Amino acid sequence: MSRRVSSISTHSPTAQDHSRSQSHARRSSHASARNPASTRRLSALSTAETGDVIPPASAQDERVAEEIASIKRYEDFTTIDWVQDASRENARRRARRQDRASFFEREGRLGWRRKVWEAYDAGQGWIVVTLIGVAIGLNAAFLNIATEWLSDIKLGYCTTAFYLNESFCCWGSESGCPAWHRWSGSFWPLNYLLYALFATLLAFCSAHLVKAYAPYAAGSGISEIKCIIAGFVMKGFLGFWTLLIKTLAMPLAIASGLSVGKEGPSVHYAVCTGNVISRLFDKYRRNAAKTREILSACAAAGVAVAFGSPIGGVLFSLEEMSSTFPLKTLWRSYYCCLVATAVLAGMNPFRTGQLVMFTVRYDRSWHFLELPFYLLLGVFGGLYGAFVMKWNLRVQAFRKKYLSAYPILESTILALATALLCYPNMFLRIDMTESMEILFRECEGGHDYDAICDRQNRWSMVFALLCATILRTFLVIISYGCKVPAGIFVPSMAIGASFGRMIGILVQALHERFPEAAFFAACEPDVPCITPGTYAFLGAGAALSGIMHITVSVVVIMFELTGALTYILPTMIVVGVTKAVADRCGKGGIADRMIWFNGFPFLDNKEEHTFGVPVSETMTASPTVLPATGLTIKEVERVASGKKFQGFPIVENLDTMILLGYIGRTELHYALDRAKREQLVRPEARCLFIPSDQPGTATTPSASVPAVSFDDVTAMAGDMSVDFSKFVDPTPLAVHPRLPLETVMELFKKLGPRVILVEHRGRLTGLVTVKDCLKYQFQVEAHENPKDDTGLQKGQEKLWDGIKSCAGWVGGNLGRLSGGRLQLGVGMSPPASTGSETFPGALHRDSGGGGEDGMELGDRDPRNAV
Amino acid sequence: MSRRVSSISTHSPTAQDHSRSQSHARRSSHASARNPASTRRLSALSTAETGDVIPPASAQDERVAEEIASIKRYEDFTTIDWVQDASRENARRRARRQDRASFFEREGRLGWRRKVWEAYDAGQGWIVVTLIGVAIGLNAAFLNIATEWLSDIKLGYCTTAFYLNESFCCWGSESGCPAWHRWSGSFWPLNYLLYALFATLLAFCSAHLVKAYAPYAAGSGISEIKCIIAGFVMKGFLGFWTLLIKTLAMPLAIASGLSVGKEGPSVHYAVCTGNVISRLFDKYRRNAAKTREILSACAAAGVAVAFGSPIGGVLFSLEEMSSTFPLKTLWRSYYCCLVATAVLAGMNPFRTGQLVMFTVRYDRSWHFLELPFYLLLGVFGGLYGAFVMKWNLRVQAFRKKYLSAYPILESTILALATALLCYPNMFLRIDMTESMEILFRECEGGHDYDAICDRQNRWSMVFALLCATILRTFLVIISYGCKVPAGIFVPSMAIGASFGRMIGILVQALHERFPEAAFFAACEPDVPCITPGTYAFLGAGAALSGIMHITVSVVVIMFELTGALTYILPTMIVVGVTKAVADRCGKGGIADRMIWFNGFPFLDNKEEHTFGVPVSETMTASPTVLPATGLTIKEVERVASGKKFQGFPIVENLDTMILLGYIGRTELHYALDRAKREQLVRPEARCLFIPSDQPGTATTPSASVPAVSFDDVTAMAGDMSVDFSKFVDPTPLAVHPRLPLETVMELFKKLGPRVILVEHRGRLTGLVTVKDCLKYQFQVEAHENPKDDTGLQKGQEKLWDGIKSCAGWVGGNLGRLSGGRLQLGVGMSPPASTGSETFPGALHRDSGGGGEDGMELGDRDPRNAV
Repeated sequence: MSRRVSSISTHSPTAQDHSRSQSHARRSSHASARNPASTRRLSALSTAETGDVIPPASAQDERVAEEIASIKRYEDFTTIDWVQDASRENARRRARRQDRASFFEREGRLGWRRKVWEAYDAGQGWIVVTLIGVAIGLNAAFLNIATEWLSDIKLGYCTTAFYLNESFCCWGSESGCPAWHRWSGSFWPLNYLLYALFATLLAFCSAHLVKAYAPYAAGSGISEIKCIIAGFVMKGFLGFWTLLIKTLAMPLAIASGLSVGKEGPSVHYAVCTGNVISRLFDKYRRNAAKTREILSACAAAGVAVAFGSPIGGVLFSLEEMSSTFPLKTLWRSYYCCLVATAVLAGMNPFRTGQLVMFTVRYDRSWHFLELPFYLLLGVFGGLYGAFVMKWNLRVQAFRKKYLSAYPILESTILALATALLCYPNMFLRIDMTESMEILFRECEGGHDYDAICDRQNRWSMVFALLCATILRTFLVIISYGCKVPAGIFVPSMAIGASFGRMIGILVQALHERFPEAAFFAACEPDVPCITPGTYAFLGAGAALSGIMHITVSVVVIMFELTGALTYILPTMIVVGVTKAVADRCGKGGIADRMIWFNGFPFLDNKEEHTFGVPVSETMTASPTVLPATGLTIKEVERVASGKKFQGFPIVENLDTMILLGYIGRTELHYALDRAKREQLVRPEARCLFIPSDQPGTATTPSASVPAVSFDDVTAMAGDMSVDFSKFVDPTPLAVHPRLPLETVMELFKKLGPRVILVEHRGRLTGLVTVKDCLKYQFQVEAHENPKDDTGLQKGQEKLWDGIKSCAGWVGGNLGRLSGGRLQLGVGMSPPASTGSETFPGALHRDSGGGGEDGMELGDRDPRNAV
Repeated sequence: MSRRVSSISTHSPTAQDHSRSQSHARRSSHASARNPASTRRLSALSTAETGDVIPPASAQDERVAEEIASIKRYEDFTTIDWVQDASRENARRRARRQDRASFFEREGRLGWRRKVWEAYDAGQGWIVVTLIGVAIGLNAAFLNIATEWLSDIKLGYCTTAFYLNESFCCWGSESGCPAWHRWSGSFWPLNYLLYALFATLLAFCSAHLVKAYAPYAAGSGISEIKCIIAGFVMKGFLGFWTLLIKTLAMPLAIASGLSVGKEGPSVHYAVCTGNVISRLFDKYRRNAAKTREILSACAAAGVAVAFGSPIGGVLFSLEEMSSTFPLKTLWRSYYCCLVATAVLAGMNPFRTGQLVMFTVRYDRSWHFLELPFYLLLGVFGGLYGAFVMKWNLRVQAFRKKYLSAYPILESTILALATALLCYPNMFLRIDMTESMEILFRECEGGHDYDAICDRQNRWSMVFALLCATILRTFLVIISYGCKVPAGIFVPSMAIGASFGRMIGILVQALHERFPEAAFFAACEPDVPCITPGTYAFLGAGAALSGIMHITVSVVVIMFELTGALTYILPTMIVVGVTKAVADRCGKGGIADRMIWFNGFPFLDNKEEHTFGVPVSETMTASPTVLPATGLTIKEVERVASGKKFQGFPIVENLDTMILLGYIGRTELHYALDRAKREQLVRPEARCLFIPSDQPGTATTPSASVPAVSFDDVTAMAGDMSVDFSKFVDPTPLAVHPRLPLETVMELFKKLGPRVILVEHRGRLTGLVTVKDCLKYQFQVEAHENPKDDTGLQKGQEKLWDGIKSCAGWVGGNLGRLSGGRLQLGVGMSPPASTGSETFPGALHRDSGGGGEDGMELGDRDPRNAV
């Protein structure tokens, strides 16, 4: 304590301290000036430069910080600053602890209330997670029931109670019952037509909902959520409307028969739920970084309820979603998954005690002789993933360029086409989860669907499965990314399952043809040796792994789907092979590719770079800086009004460029607004960005002028200088200009600051952001792999022309047939650039140029979207 | 390129560049001076200060770097520098890429060889992991067989073939067969005696092996490996001898009946295997950080083979072992587990197709009414963990203080006592894994062991299980940490299983007594409702989670043991409750506690701190620095000879203290040694720590004197100055003195530098290491929770006196009985401090003091063990 006291005696009582102690005295009149706590705070402030104890924030400061935090929370297309958020949280916690200490001294009698409050505060995180888990579980149960009913409504309805789906309507009987009425009995063309009609209608409703109320509810959302969890801000992406519309539109989209899955959307609505609920709580409204923890947990719960796989969900969140995954988040995720799954199990939506539709169990084990076929499945998974990603991205580019004005029409036509194509195939006609359940099953046990196990049917079955595989792959490529809630997990798994089952049937045929072959020596005679269902199961895992580039989560999810303990090694082998093949074919799963495609500022943890350049190569060499003293309010306002930079380094003066701190644009705006709102100062007043009693400023004349704090304005309105120092971060991260770029990227990835300053011998030499790093990375990549896609562009144009003329013909004919009452669109033309471009501020990756200008930016500057 | 060329023309051709180009020319005479590649490198060197392109290391530099790296690898009780290692690896990769480019230009015909070599280089990691996985799998199979045989040898032997254990001897029959001969038929006192005799003998062998050949093979090893993976260096801990002895001594220790498990040692030998094998490969010999990746994977494989749980292993490594766990490590771990488990499965040591002894399957599902009992199990798990940790740490303290001189005697006596205590109890007598298998089983299906399912025996069974629980807990407390390979996983699980089975039997009794109660309404009448085996299963999970403080891994491990898909929710609930209770009772699992207890420099990722002080509070305020120019060799040698610091900041001069770089002690020693060895320079020669053409040194006179590099020494021996600049890290991480300590700790945790410099306005103000942070943390904790353990100390002394007098009595009697031939020890006295203190250099945590001097250091300075 002696050091602290001495530091008081040595510092000169400057205006700032004066005003602070005044305001403090006014605020808490019962605490005398001799109060040791306030003395310590003052002394700490004055010793800020040499650093003794960081002062806990006062209530006033904290309110200001909160206001700023809540502004920042809604700044679109920016990233949060993890470092700042963490230190703010620390300060808050410390302040609370101090509060508490003094509270107990004064008002010991109210202790229990305090204790309850404290327990609440400490347990807030768990309370929030519990609420979120329950909400997600309930929502999942509702969605399961709704989806099943809507899926079956395409085929018929329940005569006993219209709201029952086929399996509930015919509870207990295996295949149909009189109570379930197919729309037109057995007249198949009418069934076909009605099927297509319903599918189109459902897709239209879904797309319309999305278009009208929440455009962000389209697509899977996984890549955006990845970015959001990494710190990107996208206003409204996780809002209430998105949640509502995603929840309503998802069952419609799935039931429409489009080749889309529910897992991506599941993650999205789960994360929305988390965001909406956590916003109600103080702790999370304030701290964006803490909210990200909760969002990670929600993503886990989303997968958990979608697959009925709690641990799989946790691992998915770990492997795919989260850029940082501390153990605390692991436990939060674990708990959130547990609650959500338990609620879902309690609701028991399928009335089978199972969490998902396609739980299966295998009784037989595998043989080492099957390994080559497993390898084949693994290779298929990897190739499937690479193929779908490549073509889907092309389709996405086409969609973005030409179709973005017609989201509803596109989805509706897609659904119609899907329905028309799929109905004839027995595996494509039914719901994907149902078809997977059928494909996974063992042949023994009497669950025969359309004689899939019959020997006579073998070759027709193989043919049907092959058709299903190819057709579904094509449909997935064109459907994923259309403007309805659409995931790619289940479609991929369904494709893998049909391929796998095909291979399984072939192997079985081989065995039955050559039972005595040396290759099949391990098989016991006269009992079934090959289980085609397990091939379907492994194929599904392979395809899922291939498209998402995840491993451990896939194994656990598949494991939790089946409890097939004996199949854990085959699953691991297949997924391992898939991973190896997929890595050969290109880096990143579809979520990562979409992030690149959309140009989000996301540094991928998985990538390792070897640039061999120092950070000075990529930094903004002469950023706009603010001298610590001397600028007038007007001048600062002019600088701040520029939308170009997210913040400004504070330097001693423009000659020495000695770095003193950093102020964010939001903070600066806030400070200026407040100064103006309270009509404190003339535009000519000088701005101080460092506490006026610091030795660094002692040489400038303004330091001797009393500074104005906001708290005692009326007394000194119109004074010479305004103190902005409390909005300045005095210790921004700064690195040496020669530090390798890789290390700086590690800093961004692992600590997550918004900006890193570059400082050499105390002098500011530059400023670097994630965007700068990404820009450099893209340039290097574009330089290394120059790509010429004019051919592609031309192809796309031709395709568009074809579609247009086709649409014209159909439209004309329809119009003619309906006597002008039906009008299809309004003469399709390439949409204007004001169309529904989803992410105006994002950085677009130019795949065309390849030169030094390999970057094409949206209507914002890259700096802006840091 | 224009910038590069211009930078050449502006720099003055100094001696260093001259010497470099000379050496380069000598090395590669076919590459002319006009070679663009070498030009680029030179230019980059000269522009190093402003930073254009970081030069790829030359072959010479690389060799030097390698030599230093291999020295550092064996510096005991230090930590590695992740940041430096990563950037060195980057440089190496870049150099290789450049090499390759020039190679293909010159010698296109040899391309295929190069390609093979490159593929090998790229795949080296996977090759290493494959080899390691195979080795671990084979070793595990051997250990499984050896352990079973040795365990059964205590009870009898196989008359048909002595090397078979009971179950192989009596293959096919459920309980015993004539071929298996119990040592003395049915005369139980003799059996008892032989049992105890064998147990003692086995423990003696195990302890003797450990003591004589590899002291590091004692104990579990998990906490040390945690530190090693985090970057700590412990010479020999992962060496070949440790591997061998751990492999040999582990089956002996387990078979001796001591309450120790094989999982900790499994992890240890797996990691040793990894270390021994990876050392054979170039890439890993050089890069300590890369080796850590492999070690993480090995730890995963160790758990995987111990539990037959590949995914559980991966998650264990993630949750418990690894401080940083990038996705690449996840995939390596996955692959390593896969290979190891597949090899183990191929070896099929149990001839059952199962990977572990106690795989079970449950047919019945659970009921929500059982939840209260599950909660009870969870609470038990948490309390068990807290209780065992508390008392085990006291026993460890006692052991360290008094027993460290008698490791063999201690283990032998422990084994004898354990055998004498355990034989009477049917659950303690047999191997722990066997007993768990029995306890986990359902009653239906005819696997009855000693009538455990009989209704008549119910109360005696409850009593036996209670005894087993209490006795085993006591034995675990005193056994864990004794000087044989000893894990705590399986003993904990066995305790949990016996407690759980007890609860299960009680619940079953309750149900049978009140079958009509409303509480049991969900049970179907007349069929078994409660499965006591599942309680044992859940209890085992709870105890494991309670002792290790892990969650997700436990769920997955339990899941992989049983494939009990339906029990995943109960398992998660139980483990969740355990975690909550355990967190209430204190932080950190037993591995973390042991790390604290031993004082390793390990920053725990799990902890969050709120110190509220800037880094300047904990830093070493005036570290020993080296001015960049002016010091003579002799002076530098004197500074370097001090063992106090691990490295020295380089400053411009002692007045300005402008920070220019950092040189590690190892690098400095190496440079000095080399200078001396090659007899280059007189002791009066000046040392240059920065390239002599830098503007910063232009003011000093020595800069104009030609510097000597090692490459062209003969020409200029005896010159005025020696250039050490290539041993200096010019861009050490530096932070502002007011940066919060929490942020600095985050930097240490997430980036892993050895040291962080503190710089203010370009001037060095201090230096901070992990140890500094830990010291501060300990001080704060000691201050907040002052502890008085004089009572404990006195109790320990009393206990020691008791043991001594007891030993004297026994020794005297034995001596008398044997006529002086048997001598027990040499009059036990407290061991001198030179005893087998395992970690002399580690930081000891003082639990006594509590004041400012709350730290007690070993015989090394903390700085030394950075």
